Amino acid sequence: MNEVRKQRIYLKMKDPKEALEIFFKHFRPEPIPDAEEVPVYKSPSRITAGPVFAKISAPHFQSAAMDGVAVRAEDTYGATERNPKRLKIGQEALWINTGQVMPEGKNAVVMVEKLNQIDEGTIEIESSAFPWQNTRKIGEDFVATELLFPQNHRIRPFDLGTLIGGGILQVKVRRRPRVSLIRTGSELIDTNTISDASLLQRGKIIESNSAVLSHLIRECGAEPVVGDIVEDDAAEIKRALLSAIDTKADMVIVLAGSSAGKKDFTAEVIEQIGELLVHGVTIMPGKPTILGEVKGRPFVGVPGYPVSSYIAFNEFVRPFLYRLQGLNVPERQSAPVTASRDIPSKLGVEEFIRVNIGRVGERLVAIPLTRAAGSVTSLSRAEGIIRIPSLSEGIVAGEETNAELLVDPEDIASTIVIIGSHDITLDILANEMRAADRGVRIASGNVGSLGGLMALRNGTAHVAGSHLLDPATGEYNIPYIERYLKKSPVHVFNLVEREQGLIVRKGNPHKVNGIEDLVNGDLSFVNRQQGSGTRILLDYKLQEMGIDPSQIQGYDNEEYTHMNVAVAVLNGTADVGLGIMAAARALDLDFIPVLKEQYDVVIPSSLVNDSKIQLLISVARSEGFKERVKGLGGYNPERSGVLWKVI
Amino acid sequence: MNEVRKQRIYLKMKDPKEALEIFFKHFRPEPIPDAEEVPVYKSPSRITAGPVFAKISAPHFQSAAMDGVAVRAEDTYGATERNPKRLKIGQEALWINTGQVMPEGKNAVVMVEKLNQIDEGTIEIESSAFPWQNTRKIGEDFVATELLFPQNHRIRPFDLGTLIGGGILQVKVRRRPRVSLIRTGSELIDTNTISDASLLQRGKIIESNSAVLSHLIRECGAEPVVGDIVEDDAAEIKRALLSAIDTKADMVIVLAGSSAGKKDFTAEVIEQIGELLVHGVTIMPGKPTILGEVKGRPFVGVPGYPVSSYIAFNEFVRPFLYRLQGLNVPERQSAPVTASRDIPSKLGVEEFIRVNIGRVGERLVAIPLTRAAGSVTSLSRAEGIIRIPSLSEGIVAGEETNAELLVDPEDIASTIVIIGSHDITLDILANEMRAADRGVRIASGNVGSLGGLMALRNGTAHVAGSHLLDPATGEYNIPYIERYLKKSPVHVFNLVEREQGLIVRKGNPHKVNGIEDLVNGDLSFVNRQQGSGTRILLDYKLQEMGIDPSQIQGYDNEEYTHMNVAVAVLNGTADVGLGIMAAARALDLDFIPVLKEQYDVVIPSSLVNDSKIQLLISVARSEGFKERVKGLGGYNPERSGVLWKVI
Repeated sequence: MNEVRKQRIYLKMKDPKEALEIFFKHFRPEPIPDAEEVPVYKSPSRITAGPVFAKISAPHFQSAAMDGVAVRAEDTYGATERNPKRLKIGQEALWINTGQVMPEGKNAVVMVEKLNQIDEGTIEIESSAFPWQNTRKIGEDFVATELLFPQNHRIRPFDLGTLIGGGILQVKVRRRPRVSLIRTGSELIDTNTISDASLLQRGKIIESNSAVLSHLIRECGAEPVVGDIVEDDAAEIKRALLSAIDTKADMVIVLAGSSAGKKDFTAEVIEQIGELLVHGVTIMPGKPTILGEVKGRPFVGVPGYPVSSYIAFNEFVRPFLYRLQGLNVPERQSAPVTASRDIPSKLGVEEFIRVNIGRVGERLVAIPLTRAAGSVTSLSRAEGIIRIPSLSEGIVAGEETNAELLVDPEDIASTIVIIGSHDITLDILANEMRAADRGVRIASGNVGSLGGLMALRNGTAHVAGSHLLDPATGEYNIPYIERYLKKSPVHVFNLVEREQGLIVRKGNPHKVNGIEDLVNGDLSFVNRQQGSGTRILLDYKLQEMGIDPSQIQGYDNEEYTHMNVAVAVLNGTADVGLGIMAAARALDLDFIPVLKEQYDVVIPSSLVNDSKIQLLISVARSEGFKERVKGLGGYNPERSGVLWKVI
Repeated sequence: MNEVRKQRIYLKMKDPKEALEIFFKHFRPEPIPDAEEVPVYKSPSRITAGPVFAKISAPHFQSAAMDGVAVRAEDTYGATERNPKRLKIGQEALWINTGQVMPEGKNAVVMVEKLNQIDEGTIEIESSAFPWQNTRKIGEDFVATELLFPQNHRIRPFDLGTLIGGGILQVKVRRRPRVSLIRTGSELIDTNTISDASLLQRGKIIESNSAVLSHLIRECGAEPVVGDIVEDDAAEIKRALLSAIDTKADMVIVLAGSSAGKKDFTAEVIEQIGELLVHGVTIMPGKPTILGEVKGRPFVGVPGYPVSSYIAFNEFVRPFLYRLQGLNVPERQSAPVTASRDIPSKLGVEEFIRVNIGRVGERLVAIPLTRAAGSVTSLSRAEGIIRIPSLSEGIVAGEETNAELLVDPEDIASTIVIIGSHDITLDILANEMRAADRGVRIASGNVGSLGGLMALRNGTAHVAGSHLLDPATGEYNIPYIERYLKKSPVHVFNLVEREQGLIVRKGNPHKVNGIEDLVNGDLSFVNRQQGSGTRILLDYKLQEMGIDPSQIQGYDNEEYTHMNVAVAVLNGTADVGLGIMAAARALDLDFIPVLKEQYDVVIPSSLVNDSKIQLLISVARSEGFKERVKGLGGYNPERSGVLWKVI
């Protein structure tokens, strides 16, 4: 710990395209030549190792193509309506069903609809048959020796029909590429060695990247091999690398610990026993990625933050694994989206912005989530990822761009976009809706109450959550709606009445009693951003009480959500903040009530009859929702879902 | 076998939309309530059975966000560039790496880049730190108790990062729906009970639908349970149905034997022990589908032809299984395609046309494959499926329509569309190309040589295969190209010289010696379609020899490929046909050579430098290709891939 530290230097930093090119040029990956035989019913998703030729024809025998009687066509010649012909059942005519083998000596089928049964032993026909009429012939679909599939074909479920029809019971497929995952980090705990997260020590982290990457590797058709966790120690890492190569891995991945700035043992080791091709890539997240070679094997060093590791995997491991199987890299589904607000980006870095996406009118609206690589929920809560190329300074609000989708497009169509003020009951609403109906999602962007009304005006939201107090009238929301949304009629529904108050550390160590104490010079405050209802509320109270905001230490220190305010207090970044009781409760903080306020949802009248919106309103009115909201504390859901005003 | 047959009557025939509505209205399928706990690393693709709340915060301890030294911010106050401050290592300043726990009593990190090390025990800083600077705070991503996922969420690989980060080691997920598959058909053989297809008896069929459907069921997140093969017998089928219900299947499927016209035991049984809701659906393939209820369970009777069973599954089983899991039905990828030729369709029936698809210029061109439900390769060789609605009479050549894709869009981008005359060496070329490079596919439409030149002219093909003899000059292709493609320059490459001749049954029972024998009144002939090179060749020969085509019995009996001509001879539909030697050999027929002809590939000059076309040419020139072509018999590949003319 006491050695001299240097800034981490990426000597071989490359842009992502160049990095991939270097990696591919170095290895020129070819399909793995090893093949193995698998039973045909286990072959889907495997890749054919050679051409597959039919062993038998399909059909492999002549059969009836209709229900009826099998005859010798020659026996039917001359039959007409006027001059019908009789055939003896069991001799000249044999009952036959579709699919049954044509009996020896018969060469046509007379359909059951075209014959009259005279008695048990006789039928009569009124027209003649021609040879092979109403029969399926040998080889009609394909003949023995015909090519069924070329090599490098990824077998799909319905291909089994062709394979089995061609008499293929065993298929020669390529061995799956083996990917060795080496987990490094003295702070890591294996999911299997801990029975309950509450036992987790401070400073320890349950390792998750290997689980994520194992599934992603399998999705690529390859096989993960996960080793034991390795300490942060060059010798240990070297040993693990060499042993992975001994076990015939086709690719070796070192997963860094979940810290990004760990001492860079991995690059050191690669330089000693292999070749470092790329050290650092201009992507965000994912910068500390390493590409190299160890004893002829491709090597990828994946950064530790979950989002970084996911992106590094997709950029470098995934294309390599497909190439090792002779396959094109499948493109992910993508869709054009409209940015709900400015998304600035750093020049010289390719940024991967995780976004919520919902369909509003004809457009898909993208709401950026946090960019922090450490925020794993920025991925799991996203519907898509927008790439901002290295030469772009970003996207402006209203601009159209492309997003890779992380969910099915149907899930986006059924997403309600709620933009505006943040409230915890929206999470509960989201979940109760998911419980009530398949697949309705809520994407919520927290831009404050005024931002929500603006989003409605711009057509980038379905619903705005708002608690804007008009100091002049003491009324909530309506004056603001009348001012900002005059051209578009809206329905305003109550969602909850909630308690706003001061959030302080457990035990209220600074003995805060109310707003008046904020001017106490020792207290540091954490504020909400301008345009948020809570900020307006505070400013209104300060004005009412004649307090000058400049007297409050930390007044300019802004957070975007109630929860962030509570976290700031928990952390000690601030001593006190204004927010809702539920946020204080969630973090076991103390709460000093200041006032009750009204939180509404504002919905364009044109959308009110939409089934998703109807579901939202009926869930807001349900007892289940109200019960859970009450349980949070500080909420009165009595008027939840009540239509308050139509403007 | 000797009972009186009746025409199969579909008393409850419905159109597919109505059928699905009836099925859904009857059952109103809800998510299966049963839940089970699985270890988190096994949870991807499972559906959450309830909301998942974080057990621990993420991060769950305060840690350094940068490499550097941990300090108490207060100790740094007053440090400036002019007036730097010194801190003692081990006391006021503790070395720390990103991700490590903040030591007791320290509340900020000074980055390593911002400090000067004076000696082993001392550092110097030139600016002060503020509390919690460069640290990651508890709950920055999410806090304990926060909703991580609502219920009915399908867990994706990267969701494991969030779950494990939230201390979730076991996840409550919905039980997978169980689907019982009952296979009926006395002619069916299980893949497991036969070791080699050559042992297959005439009249027997290796059962494949259960293997296909099992994989499709798994793709929907459900679990197939495949029973033993059941004889075609009402009592046996009833027993199998009741026992499937006893084993708690959430859905029961009866797979008909691979014959379509089997006696309809299944519908009878359903009427006895359950309720028949829909008997027959106006789709093609898939008409004999049955929907019903048995003891409260949904029941689907799936027709036996592989393509029919695939389509019936997608239309009725798939949406039901997703609904049982509370999920939207994922849409399949689709793309707008241009029909390469007219695709007429029957009014009153929704048709599912399997098509090859390739990108030509800016357009995706769709080439219809055979519509026969019995042709399983019409599915496995297709890149997509076009639905023609019941009220449409079809699609005309050049019309744009939508195709569901059966392959990744990348595979289509790398498909070479070859339209024109049929030649078996194209199959070999396709496979050698797949062997030479990842993912290049060939889609070939057999419309005869002239049709191929027309496709080039209309921009719906990359390559035309042609062997058009000009009777006036004795030259191949060039006069035709000059006449039909005058506006667009092309390169003409030789592919093969091949032997055309008369194909007759083994042993040549009719003692055919040459074209002159076709006028023998006893012989029936099978011809190729007008516009095909082989037809032109025949007509040229007949004219040369002074034979009137009307003298030839079967002259109007047309087939579209060499292979179909050979199959007609094998079947006895015809005694003799004109075709290539390889087709005769493949079916073990006899061949009487008539003449050698030139088969060329015609490529627009604008495409010749395309990498796929370059690959095609280099493969055509390769020894591997030539060897395999020689092995077919009747081919001379000496000039394969030689550029013959640029016009």
